[in-house]
Amino acid sequence: MELWQRLIEGDEVACARCLTIVENEREGYVELLRNIHPYTGNAVIIGITGPPGAGKSTLVDKVVKELRNEDHKVGVIAVDPTSPFTRGAILGDRIRMSDLNLDPKVFIRSMGTRGSLGGISKGTQAGIKVLDAYGCDYIIVETVGVGQSEIDVVKTVDTVVMVMVPGLGDDIQAIKAGVMEIGDVFVINKADNDGARKTKIEIEMMLDFKKDWEFRPPVSMSIASENKGIDTLVQNIKAHTKYLNESDRLKDRRYHREAMQVYQFVEHHFDNTLEKAMDQKEEEINHSLEGKTDPYTIGFALIDQLMK
Amino acid sequence: MELWQRLIEGDEVACARCLTIVENEREGYVELLRNIHPYTGNAVIIGITGPPGAGKSTLVDKVVKELRNEDHKVGVIAVDPTSPFTRGAILGDRIRMSDLNLDPKVFIRSMGTRGSLGGISKGTQAGIKVLDAYGCDYIIVETVGVGQSEIDVVKTVDTVVMVMVPGLGDDIQAIKAGVMEIGDVFVINKADNDGARKTKIEIEMMLDFKKDWEFRPPVSMSIASENKGIDTLVQNIKAHTKYLNESDRLKDRRYHREAMQVYQFVEHHFDNTLEKAMDQKEEEINHSLEGKTDPYTIGFALIDQLMK
Repeated sequence: MELWQRLIEGDEVACARCLTIVENEREGYVELLRNIHPYTGNAVIIGITGPPGAGKSTLVDKVVKELRNEDHKVGVIAVDPTSPFTRGAILGDRIRMSDLNLDPKVFIRSMGTRGSLGGISKGTQAGIKVLDAYGCDYIIVETVGVGQSEIDVVKTVDTVVMVMVPGLGDDIQAIKAGVMEIGDVFVINKADNDGARKTKIEIEMMLDFKKDWEFRPPVSMSIASENKGIDTLVQNIKAHTKYLNESDRLKDRRYHREAMQVYQFVEHHFDNTLEKAMDQKEEEINHSLEGKTDPYTIGFALIDQLMK
Repeated sequence: MELWQRLIEGDEVACARCLTIVENEREGYVELLRNIHPYTGNAVIIGITGPPGAGKSTLVDKVVKELRNEDHKVGVIAVDPTSPFTRGAILGDRIRMSDLNLDPKVFIRSMGTRGSLGGISKGTQAGIKVLDAYGCDYIIVETVGVGQSEIDVVKTVDTVVMVMVPGLGDDIQAIKAGVMEIGDVFVINKADNDGARKTKIEIEMMLDFKKDWEFRPPVSMSIASENKGIDTLVQNIKAHTKYLNESDRLKDRRYHREAMQVYQFVEHHFDNTLEKAMDQKEEEINHSLEGKTDPYTIGFALIDQLMK
């Protein structure tokens, strides 16, 4: 039996190997993704994101346990920034999840961001696909940070859970503007800290800005470290899943996710070709630094060279 | 006199217009960038980044004032996440900088992140170029967040100032791994908060990991709101500039920045073409969702269609 067939049969070792293959783009990874494609599209995909210090890992841990109580098979992809020092994903606080690692119906993988040029979402998309084919009912994608790449990742999931924390200070305004608006479900974690109620009011006020909600994001509180508020959060996630199923929105999101896979596959291929072509341009780039030419002239030449 | 010539003469209105043209990629923006290219390469470019809540805006404000005391001409680009609600950059805390706006030798611009696909750095690079041609001695790029896109931006500057804050909680580990390692100069802001000394020790310990520093990043403390520690921070930045000038590193960084401009220009052109081509693929993407084809088959067809 081929590796991808063993994955579909639910073989845990095959799943781990498939994830490694797609994450590192080992030989045959495209063929693997092609083979498993017809077996995907069944999982509910949940993105959990929010600013650093919000306690996302602990929260994910508890949400997984809540879903396991209902006997769901659960996959977790934790997107960790890659360390230039260690040249790999930092497992860090993933270690907390070790008791879940013993559960055969939970599969956890940390993924690094690898390349310098917006590399987060490519590996994540492929990883979701593998866990989907593996038969997970729920796939949770946890991202650290509040940047654009994280937005790109969570945009392609079914439900975005935005984890907030009381008293984030002035920059909360900036976070609100850029990231909070993609939240389908909000949770204020560490709700025993000062200012939790104030943060809830601020989020509700921001949500009031938009009048025509088809599904107004619910805002709940949690203290993940004490397992408080997790049941409400999971209920809110399920309410959003129900809304997606009953409206056209699920179709929209899945279309977007499929299109994203096509786009990223092609862009990635182009980027690889471009990187190789640029290795030949060292002299011209030095000339550009000296003002003898400019980046756009070099760029136009590369466009002519690479594109039809 | 043409607009770009007025920019080079130091015309403030021309500078504002040029920034708008390059940020929004209005007609003629490439020609504009080409024309000003020979007049660039003189500014010291400083990236200031760090997690939300670190008080970066206030710190930038004070650093600008310190540089103004030495009569330097200073440009600031603040990268703000774009709000899907307001469809524009949120000025938010930039208002704090209003007294600086009255100073003719300070030019401040907020830039949104625009597109969904890693759009931060394109506009920022072009903005840096405009401010450089405008004659700024220092250009400060302030980014909110700790994501990959922000890393991409700061990687192309001369000096990366990493703003930390005491007591960021568990996720500090993740921030450390992904972002801290790109810091050339560290500052712990809000140093009157609990845990400032502990944070300093943690940063120093992380720096100890690497033994072969050519320039070991200095770690200082500040309370920007009280204008404390700004002089030390500026001295540390200048020490790094001195190191860059005396080693080959400045050349390396500037080569990298020039190459990045070429790369992004070509990639951007390809992305636009790809987006248009994908509009024609709606039916096939729907077939892929139904399992009749897959994203990679569609992708290979697009590669054939667009690339030589």
